[in-house]
Amino acid sequence: MPEEIRIITEVFSANDAIARQNQELLNQRGVYAVDLIASPGAGKTSLIEQTLKQLSPRFRISVVNGDLATQLDKERAEAAGAKAVNINTGGECHLDANMVRGALSSLDLSSFDLILIENVGNLICPASFKLGAHHLVVIASVPEGDDKPYKYPGTFAQADAVLLNKIDLLPYVPFNKERFIKGVKLLNPRADIIEISCLTGFGISKWCEWLVWRMAEIKSSNNRE
Amino acid sequence: MPEEIRIITEVFSANDAIARQNQELLNQRGVYAVDLIASPGAGKTSLIEQTLKQLSPRFRISVVNGDLATQLDKERAEAAGAKAVNINTGGECHLDANMVRGALSSLDLSSFDLILIENVGNLICPASFKLGAHHLVVIASVPEGDDKPYKYPGTFAQADAVLLNKIDLLPYVPFNKERFIKGVKLLNPRADIIEISCLTGFGISKWCEWLVWRMAEIKSSNNRE
Repeated sequence: MPEEIRIITEVFSANDAIARQNQELLNQRGVYAVDLIASPGAGKTSLIEQTLKQLSPRFRISVVNGDLATQLDKERAEAAGAKAVNINTGGECHLDANMVRGALSSLDLSSFDLILIENVGNLICPASFKLGAHHLVVIASVPEGDDKPYKYPGTFAQADAVLLNKIDLLPYVPFNKERFIKGVKLLNPRADIIEISCLTGFGISKWCEWLVWRMAEIKSSNNRE
Repeated sequence: MPEEIRIITEVFSANDAIARQNQELLNQRGVYAVDLIASPGAGKTSLIEQTLKQLSPRFRISVVNGDLATQLDKERAEAAGAKAVNINTGGECHLDANMVRGALSSLDLSSFDLILIENVGNLICPASFKLGAHHLVVIASVPEGDDKPYKYPGTFAQADAVLLNKIDLLPYVPFNKERFIKGVKLLNPRADIIEISCLTGFGISKWCEWLVWRMAEIKSSNNRE
């Protein structure tokens, strides 16, 4: 095996082993976690704010924010009332399982029901690194264009849910919703597609229902084991 | 030096050497090239379409499209009348100098004045790989939010120009233009900032003037050598 490929294979397999340990730890503590992946500016932080607003009265939620250089997203999650942990990746283009392990170790996990992991803004690299979260949610947004599933297939193919955000901008930009949905379905027939607007609140209840339902499934499956 | 750092350093230095060769080749052939970097959906392909529309009557333009998996952007550049070359990165998150060397070798360079290189949609990784282009242009867009320079400093710090696209969406989304501009200026006082809308055509003439001016500067500097 060429040197470069050997090293890359070793990196992924080491990452996956730590991701499995992260998920075991979450299961032992009864915590459900989702990994949120999106382009810069698709609305990950706004989605977290809306989710906190709707679900904080019923669930104990923590946020793990991956960021290249700042703490801006962590500050927004804290302003929305969550216990938040910042992972400064120092320029690295994705979170990895080891970074998340560090973040989890700084939380008293038994105090939380749900952890929202906000990955670095990047529609490519984060999908290659499992973190140990139970589900992967991709957030796309209307102004990014209807061709995104076709152009970033690796990420959309792995999503458990695809949120189509900024649906309020449909009247103002060229966007063929059928083409977008067809692209997602072609790559990934099992992904749920939910239209939302973090600006107006449209669809946020439906997304929160999805989240609560999936959390219940995972917790019930863990209780049976 | 640890093994991983040694390999990464070698990768960058090998890439930079090829980038310098690419630029020498472009200079010998009298071709000016820009590297266009942006998030997915910020408007790189639309910008290329608008630029072709405005400058094709005066200059011979080729487009090099970096894409993870499809040829969609190349097809749009061709439909707009350009000779286009697709680089399918096979999932790789950025163009590198060696990929661009391959693309340049497939073009009769002396037939062109200007090459627009459309990098992979990613606001992080492409900035680490010089391609041999004379200038780096970053395209941001209003719906991505005014915090982008602060959150992706490595890319904005290297830009020769920052285009703020989708300015027509200002009435519909929260965006503090002063905060955005302040962020760019803090990181990079020398970058020109140009507001555009590839949908309405606003600012495209100003951008094309920038491009023609820079092309003239580079060509005149090469002629003096």
